[in-house]
Amino acid sequence: MPGPVLALVGATGAVGTVMVDIFNGRTEWPWGEVRLIASPRSAGKKITVRGEELTVLALAPEVFDGVDVAMFDVPDEVSAQWAPIAAERGAVAVDNSGAFRMDDQVPLVVPEVNDDKAADRPRGIIANPNCTTLSMMAAIGALHREFELRELVVSSYQAASGAGQEGIDRLQAEYAAVAGKEVGVRAGDVREALAAAGLSQEDSPFPAPLALNVVPWAGSLKADGWNSEELKVRNESRKILGIPDLKVSATCVRVPVVTTHSLAVHATFANPVTVAQAHEILAAQPSIVLVDNPEAGEFPTPADVVGGDPTYVGRVRQALDFPNTLDFFVCGDNLRKGAALNTYEIAESLAKTL
Amino acid sequence: MPGPVLALVGATGAVGTVMVDIFNGRTEWPWGEVRLIASPRSAGKKITVRGEELTVLALAPEVFDGVDVAMFDVPDEVSAQWAPIAAERGAVAVDNSGAFRMDDQVPLVVPEVNDDKAADRPRGIIANPNCTTLSMMAAIGALHREFELRELVVSSYQAASGAGQEGIDRLQAEYAAVAGKEVGVRAGDVREALAAAGLSQEDSPFPAPLALNVVPWAGSLKADGWNSEELKVRNESRKILGIPDLKVSATCVRVPVVTTHSLAVHATFANPVTVAQAHEILAAQPSIVLVDNPEAGEFPTPADVVGGDPTYVGRVRQALDFPNTLDFFVCGDNLRKGAALNTYEIAESLAKTL
Repeated sequence: MPGPVLALVGATGAVGTVMVDIFNGRTEWPWGEVRLIASPRSAGKKITVRGEELTVLALAPEVFDGVDVAMFDVPDEVSAQWAPIAAERGAVAVDNSGAFRMDDQVPLVVPEVNDDKAADRPRGIIANPNCTTLSMMAAIGALHREFELRELVVSSYQAASGAGQEGIDRLQAEYAAVAGKEVGVRAGDVREALAAAGLSQEDSPFPAPLALNVVPWAGSLKADGWNSEELKVRNESRKILGIPDLKVSATCVRVPVVTTHSLAVHATFANPVTVAQAHEILAAQPSIVLVDNPEAGEFPTPADVVGGDPTYVGRVRQALDFPNTLDFFVCGDNLRKGAALNTYEIAESLAKTL
Repeated sequence: MPGPVLALVGATGAVGTVMVDIFNGRTEWPWGEVRLIASPRSAGKKITVRGEELTVLALAPEVFDGVDVAMFDVPDEVSAQWAPIAAERGAVAVDNSGAFRMDDQVPLVVPEVNDDKAADRPRGIIANPNCTTLSMMAAIGALHREFELRELVVSSYQAASGAGQEGIDRLQAEYAAVAGKEVGVRAGDVREALAAAGLSQEDSPFPAPLALNVVPWAGSLKADGWNSEELKVRNESRKILGIPDLKVSATCVRVPVVTTHSLAVHATFANPVTVAQAHEILAAQPSIVLVDNPEAGEFPTPADVVGGDPTYVGRVRQALDFPNTLDFFVCGDNLRKGAALNTYEIAESLAKTL
């Protein structure tokens, strides 16, 4: 009997490209067929998956016929239109956009945290969380199971690729424009160096220079000065963990890193927690690498984490003044666990039920 | 009558150089004489101060004779030895190192927050806070006066120049080594690019690559996984604000920015606080610039703040789930308000009492 059929919508985008890398790197492979799907503009491209050259198909209702699981790595509005069509045609849609995450009829799944929720999917759609939330969720979920999470104060150090290939290209162009110059020492000199290199701010996916800078903004403006990214961290954490009254404050900041989001987390639990207990729990998770030996200069940094599947956790400290509270630092590749990998893990888990 | 005599010890270092810029930029000038002092190695150099060419003097007890205020911008161990000597010779020593900050006999002063403490100096020494603490203290102090601070959760985005000129040189060399290359996409590739450019990690003042990276470490290892920088934020904030039981958790992270520290602050007060009230208070401070209009893309970033005297504050939000709590983002030039400027402001305030 041939295995189930997997579709990847958005196969030629930044996340889709990482997904193909994930396909090629897996040891277990439950799928009988893979269909690569993209906009008509990218249709016809050839991409090799596990040794077989596949032709990218144009997005259309009939490409979902016979598909068991359809993964969507496309903008919100494309998912909003097409995931229901895939579901109608009999596929389970696993969507990485923001279109369905807070829909009561759509589970929001991180396999190592709440895989049990994936079975209850009245719309035939399962949502994948936002990359910033996902980068910390394996660690938070493991600690919550043991100590009962009550409060989160989070500051992010988000990579340029959170804004897609355009974000990566912009960051690299900005590095080239400032490297070897004495800039970053006077207000406005980074802006001048970018302008001199022909990089106008209006063409950037970021609202300020990112090279030699940090930008306290991500997403779009919501009520009372909060941005969409900060509210996603709050609302998605609550939904994934099943804690509707979880207290959350997030500040989202873009940093000049290509890929891998980092977060400084201040997490308060209902129960007492020690660093030794936290270390033991974190080290026991298959999807977490504990790197926490500052005496030897060992802690997670994006440059050592990027391109890998695990979430890296370090700098675990017991808060000195807050009871039942840990401070720690976590790094996760925002294109892998933060996007493509988690989506694939949901699909892989579904394959076992088909 | 000639004005008082001001000495600058460490005149040729990274902070000392900024201090000379500050001398040259002031409108009011109460001093009758300036003495520039450095190690014997740098003695004899010529530096122009307010149009007059001065010769740098070698550090020795007698250079403090007749000095009214001696500012120290030198490493801890140099201050520990020499600030008491300056005081013995009759000068008030204003020290920017960490040597005396937590000494009960030494006031720790931020003029706009606790200038009244400067008069009580039994050792003849006044300490200047750490640059990370200082970068947020004008804002925190103003809000505390009105709403009574109880708790601080802080994540820093610290610039390379916090590690002195060596830090600046290293960051610029790292930018040059990675610019124009496809790195930051695979674990270890940034390290490889630096090694290929002849930049060994052992020669860096930072414990990991800083270009295309963030490094969750500053200072030295203290008990229970905390580093010295994080404990300074806690202990110095308590002392400056006069709140011995202030609850503080800080995570200090180095980012690839030349100069200007940023902090994401989550501040809980005894009393209710609104964004409108906070805006009004912050905007009224002479040393603060409020930049908080995200709809127009306006928030503080290091690239727009560096080189200036004020602390910039933006992204002020009322916490959604924590009572009496504000989240905000603050940027301050770590060499100016974070070091040289605050030291000079203490000295200037002293000049009025001489």
